[in-house]
Amino acid sequence: MYIVPESAIADLVSRKDSFDAVEQVFASMSKRSAYNFPVIRESIGHADALYGFKSGFDRDALNLGLKSGGYWPGNEVKGLTNHQSTVFLFDADTGKCRAVVGGNLLTALRTAAASSVSIAHLAPKDARVIGMIGAGHQSAFQLRAALEQRDFEKVIGWNYHPEMLSRLEEVAQEAGLPFEKVELDQLGAEADVIISITSSFDPILMDAHVSGGTHIACMGTDTKGKQEVGATLIARATVFTDELAQSVSIGECQHAIAAGLINQGQISELGAVINGTHPGRTSDDEVTLFDGTGVGLQDLAVADAVVKRAVEQGIAIEVEF
Amino acid sequence: MYIVPESAIADLVSRKDSFDAVEQVFASMSKRSAYNFPVIRESIGHADALYGFKSGFDRDALNLGLKSGGYWPGNEVKGLTNHQSTVFLFDADTGKCRAVVGGNLLTALRTAAASSVSIAHLAPKDARVIGMIGAGHQSAFQLRAALEQRDFEKVIGWNYHPEMLSRLEEVAQEAGLPFEKVELDQLGAEADVIISITSSFDPILMDAHVSGGTHIACMGTDTKGKQEVGATLIARATVFTDELAQSVSIGECQHAIAAGLINQGQISELGAVINGTHPGRTSDDEVTLFDGTGVGLQDLAVADAVVKRAVEQGIAIEVEF
Repeated sequence: MYIVPESAIADLVSRKDSFDAVEQVFASMSKRSAYNFPVIRESIGHADALYGFKSGFDRDALNLGLKSGGYWPGNEVKGLTNHQSTVFLFDADTGKCRAVVGGNLLTALRTAAASSVSIAHLAPKDARVIGMIGAGHQSAFQLRAALEQRDFEKVIGWNYHPEMLSRLEEVAQEAGLPFEKVELDQLGAEADVIISITSSFDPILMDAHVSGGTHIACMGTDTKGKQEVGATLIARATVFTDELAQSVSIGECQHAIAAGLINQGQISELGAVINGTHPGRTSDDEVTLFDGTGVGLQDLAVADAVVKRAVEQGIAIEVEF
Repeated sequence: MYIVPESAIADLVSRKDSFDAVEQVFASMSKRSAYNFPVIRESIGHADALYGFKSGFDRDALNLGLKSGGYWPGNEVKGLTNHQSTVFLFDADTGKCRAVVGGNLLTALRTAAASSVSIAHLAPKDARVIGMIGAGHQSAFQLRAALEQRDFEKVIGWNYHPEMLSRLEEVAQEAGLPFEKVELDQLGAEADVIISITSSFDPILMDAHVSGGTHIACMGTDTKGKQEVGATLIARATVFTDELAQSVSIGECQHAIAAGLINQGQISELGAVINGTHPGRTSDDEVTLFDGTGVGLQDLAVADAVVKRAVEQGIAIEVEF
C-alpha cells in the first residue's frame, strides 16, 4: 500500500495531470464505463462537522475507491484547513487498499480541472477576456487553470467583498495579464468566459448581464438551495454537466428544473463533447454553461495520477499492509 | 496517521477486547449516541466483485469512520481472502484520517463478538450445550468466542456438508469439550444456545426443532433473501437485534416482518439489555433470538481497540500525513 501525504501533493501533480485525469474520467462517465456510487453526507452532531464519502469506479482506468472527509468549521483556529479530505484507492482486481492520498489540495485541483476541461471544449476559440465571480480560496486555482486554456488578454472580477479580489489580481499578475474589478453588468458584457465559484444561496449573475457567445462555468453550487446564476440564464444557455443526477438535484440546474424552465433532456454531459458524441458549441453567439457539481470519480482520477507520479519519483511511502 | 497491517492484528486484539468494544457500541447505539450511516453496496461490473462501505459515528467513544471493501470471488485462486476489508478511522475533532487498519480478521472478530455479547446477556445462565449450524470459516471464530460466555460441557453441530464439521470438532477439542455431529431435531432439542452462521437462502432451523429456553444467535443473514430460521420460530421468540432498520430489511427478521408474523415494535435492541432499559430474558423456558446483521460501528469499535493496543505495543506504523 502506498501513502502519499498531503504535504507531498503540491510538488507531484501538475495542472496538466489533473486536466488529463478529469477529462478522461468525464469521457468514461459519458460512455457508462465509469459511475459514481450514492453520496453519503452526514451532519455528525459533533464539532458542527459535516462528514461523508464520494465514491465510484472507472472500469476503463480501473480506479476504484472513495474520498472521505468533510467540513470541520472549528479547524481554522487550530491552524488546520476546515475542509479535510483523504482519498483511498482500491485494487479493482482484488479489493485490497492500494493507496491513501491526502485529499485537500487534490480537491482544489480536480475542481479547477473540471472548469478547465469545460473551457477547453466549450469556450469560444478566440476568447480574450475571462471574468471571475467569487474570490475565495478556490478562485485562484480556478483562474490559474483556466488561463492555460485560451489566449486570454485580460482578467476581470467581481466579489461580494471587493477587497478580496486582490487574490485574483495576483494570479493575473503572475500570468502577466491586467486585472480589473468590475460590476456584474460589465462582467457579463465583456467576458468571453465566466467562472462562478461562490457559496451563494441567491443568484448573482443574471440573464440580462450576459451578452455574446459566452461560456460560463458554474462551479460553486453543490448543495440543495445554493445558486449562482439566474434560472432564465440557464434556460437560454446550452447546458452541460459532469453528472446529470447531481446537476438537477444539488447543482446549478436544480432551480431551472424546479421552475419548469428546462427539462433533464436539455442538459448534456460534458463527457459527450469529449467523446465526440455531442457537437458542443455550434455557433459564435451561443451561451454555453457548465454545471460542475463535483463527483467522486474526479478525486479518484487525480489521486491515481498523484500515486503514479509519487511512485515514479520515489516519494510514495510504501507500507506492507 | 497510524497504519496497522492485517498481519499484525492477530497478536494485537483479544476476544475480550472485541467483546468489550462491541458491547460498548451496542449500548451507545441504543442510547442514540452512536449511529450507522447508510450502507453503500455496489456490484462494480469487474471481477464479479461486490464493493461498498459501512460507516458511522459513536459520539461516546469518538469513533468516526468506515469499513470499505467487499467480496472478490476470484481472490482465492490468487492466494488471497475473497472478503477484503480495510477500516479507516478519522479524528472526530478535525476530520483528519487517524488510522488505517487491516479489516479481514477484524470482521471475523467483531461478528463473533456480537453473538458472544448476545449470549452473555440473553442465554440461560446454566447453559451447558451449544449447537452450531454452519461450519464455514466464520464458524470457528463464533464458537471460540461463545465458549467463553457460559460453562459449556458439550458442542453439537449440523452442517449441510457434514464433513466440514471437523473444523468445529477441533475448536471443541482445543477447549477440552466433546463434539457430536447431530441432526437438526436433536440440535434444537439439546442445545441451550444455538449459533447459526451460514449463507443460506432457505430456513434451516424450524420452530418444531427447538424446545426449552434456548438462546439463538442468527449471524448469517445480511442480505435481502437470505434466511436461516423459520419465520414462525422468530414469531415465538423474544427477538433482539443490533440495528432495527437492518433487521427488518436485510436481517433474519425480514421474512417474519414480510409475512406479518411480527411487527417492528416486537424487536428490541440488544443495546437496551446492555443499558438495563430492557430486562432481556425473563423466564427459563423463553426462547430468545438475536438477529445479528452486522453494522459498521462494530468494525470501528474493534479497529479503535486494535489501534490503541498497537500504539501501546509500538507496533503501529506512524506516517506523517
